Amino acid sequence: MDIIVQKYGGSSLIDIEKIKFVAERIVETKKNGYGVVVVVSAMGKTTDNLISLAKQITTFPPARELDLLLSTGEMVSVSLVCMAIENLGYEAEGFPGYFAGIKTDNVHTKARIQKIDPKNIIRELNKNKIVVVAGFQGISFENTITTLGRGGSDLTAIAIAAAIKAKLCEIYTDVEGVFTADPNIISEAKLIKEISYDEMLEMAWSGAKVMQARAVEFAKKYKVPFVVKPTFNKKGEGTMIKEMEVKEGASVSAVSIDKNQAKITIFRIPDRPGIAAEIFTSIGNENINVDMIVQNVSKQNYADISFTVDINDLEKAFEISQKLGEKLGAEKVEKDTDICKISIIGIGMMNNPGVAGRMFSAIAKVGVNIEMISTSEIKISSIVRKKDGEKALKQVHKEFIQ
Amino acid sequence: MDIIVQKYGGSSLIDIEKIKFVAERIVETKKNGYGVVVVVSAMGKTTDNLISLAKQITTFPPARELDLLLSTGEMVSVSLVCMAIENLGYEAEGFPGYFAGIKTDNVHTKARIQKIDPKNIIRELNKNKIVVVAGFQGISFENTITTLGRGGSDLTAIAIAAAIKAKLCEIYTDVEGVFTADPNIISEAKLIKEISYDEMLEMAWSGAKVMQARAVEFAKKYKVPFVVKPTFNKKGEGTMIKEMEVKEGASVSAVSIDKNQAKITIFRIPDRPGIAAEIFTSIGNENINVDMIVQNVSKQNYADISFTVDINDLEKAFEISQKLGEKLGAEKVEKDTDICKISIIGIGMMNNPGVAGRMFSAIAKVGVNIEMISTSEIKISSIVRKKDGEKALKQVHKEFIQ
Repeated sequence: MDIIVQKYGGSSLIDIEKIKFVAERIVETKKNGYGVVVVVSAMGKTTDNLISLAKQITTFPPARELDLLLSTGEMVSVSLVCMAIENLGYEAEGFPGYFAGIKTDNVHTKARIQKIDPKNIIRELNKNKIVVVAGFQGISFENTITTLGRGGSDLTAIAIAAAIKAKLCEIYTDVEGVFTADPNIISEAKLIKEISYDEMLEMAWSGAKVMQARAVEFAKKYKVPFVVKPTFNKKGEGTMIKEMEVKEGASVSAVSIDKNQAKITIFRIPDRPGIAAEIFTSIGNENINVDMIVQNVSKQNYADISFTVDINDLEKAFEISQKLGEKLGAEKVEKDTDICKISIIGIGMMNNPGVAGRMFSAIAKVGVNIEMISTSEIKISSIVRKKDGEKALKQVHKEFIQ
Repeated sequence: MDIIVQKYGGSSLIDIEKIKFVAERIVETKKNGYGVVVVVSAMGKTTDNLISLAKQITTFPPARELDLLLSTGEMVSVSLVCMAIENLGYEAEGFPGYFAGIKTDNVHTKARIQKIDPKNIIRELNKNKIVVVAGFQGISFENTITTLGRGGSDLTAIAIAAAIKAKLCEIYTDVEGVFTADPNIISEAKLIKEISYDEMLEMAWSGAKVMQARAVEFAKKYKVPFVVKPTFNKKGEGTMIKEMEVKEGASVSAVSIDKNQAKITIFRIPDRPGIAAEIFTSIGNENINVDMIVQNVSKQNYADISFTVDINDLEKAFEISQKLGEKLGAEKVEKDTDICKISIIGIGMMNNPGVAGRMFSAIAKVGVNIEMISTSEIKISSIVRKKDGEKALKQVHKEFIQ
């Protein structure tokens, strides 16, 4: 029997009415002859409410206890979804994360999956039951309950799909699928029918908050085909994400904007070999991801180095940079949050050098200045002033997609 | 190191303010040199709220899923109490019921404890941590989460105290302890300093809703000394419940009133040997407890039989009685909910025959008629009209206690 894994997020489970609707979708899949494993998130704003309870006790709740607390949210969803399924005359079996065999490390609140032991899930599927699993949570080798970080339910679903060799993993959400751009910004944005793992990954990293990047990485690694679909529009076919061959010629699948970037510049560092390595090793040691780096041409043995980080890491990265700047004899260190990143994403761009030029021309056409550029095999990004971001994005979308 | 088990009910954990207060009490006990295991219920009305969510899906929620749902309530309390303890600078370890080793049968929503495996609790106590356990829940041999029924957290606390050979189990509650009568009815009621397991058990069964009877039975069986104490009055010493020797002479410890009784009477059954056995076997087969039985003297080979049951079992018991009455050729079967039961409870009453007479005289003195009587080694009960109950209770309290 082919197995389908379905994941329903918090916005699909906001009240009992919606839970009943979700149960109907689940049962329909079962009726169509599939084995069904369902992964659920906590209802609506439950997780936020639990966090706020904890913060009434202490500003920085201890991670292990916080995980135990948060894990209850998904368990409530599991119970209610099981009840709604059984109410439709089908048998369901509900599993908290530990019964579902989700083994993680012991890094509480952002644990990483180490292993999936799906024997309990498979046993219940073999009894012809619909299995409902609490997303976002696992159990550490120390037997404590862990959580996988924001969006972790996507990861749970993909990882289970990989472990039980599911035919397909369906990620249900409150949007129609993955678009060529954020429809809130660009009304002409189109739904993408299918897209490769790599493109989806670049979109996840580029600020298109459809899905957690770790989940996409996992899907790519284990070749799990998945589809992002709307929960409440039964006709919506969503976006299929799978392995795709590199096409001949450039093909820009989507454009994105990321407003959560910040820039640090270290001015006039005495230029000697190894300077850049020293800076980015120190920052990497603090678990901060550096996105773009620009080092200008050395003038009279001095160089300026600019780089971007996620805005949440800015203060820490800035502190490290200041210390380093002093130590290395730099003139000054500045931070800048007034930037954003415009990206175009698509397979095969590297084979078509004209793509970058078309992007920069489009941005120039609306009078916007590009401050930094980075390119990868399937993505080209440009940093512009924050106020210019949407204007540039629209023109780029027009150039490549409309 | 001596270990103390403390149980805090939902009314002691109604909000974050109260949870912080409870954490202070816990830490004080730790400071006094004890190992501390804490058992907590769900916060305030959490359990009721979860049940009402489930009932929005289906009028009769499936028991197994309901247990998974309800078990989250205590887990929230465990997490928050742990955080509050750690916030005071002490180390805490929180356990859901299954990690605490509470093994039960698989009768969901009213599971019975089969075994306690306290190795996880003991391991953490040995690390000098305060262990916080989710009350009311366990894990079945089928690896499903079970709950122990209303008031089950008391049972969790007593059972853990027995398993780890605790010096004392403290049941914290929103009352001052166990009283000689319900203080809401009899303002002169006095706090009882100490009382035997058997007396406490009779009080639990007699409508004094201080504690779940199963917890008291368990304490008696394993000789666990426990005290019922007020959470929010640090000076309150509460009531000690332990093994006590039978005293010389009568000693009435408490009086109680139970308004949840109902009476069934089968009139004019042809009297032959085995009739009573047939009736009470049929009723017992339906898991209905019969409390008092009165069979009047046979007249012309006909007998009347009256008996009392809990008001929740009345309809079922009445249905069985009607069928039996027809089959046995009885004249008619009647039910009566307009009754209540007055009891006096105390060790050594059997050695002092005058006690029963004093009780009946007291009730007669206020003009109340006694309809049925039952006696046990430590209890004498009388059924009277419901409207006369409190009047009779007051007089009996005056006779024996004031």
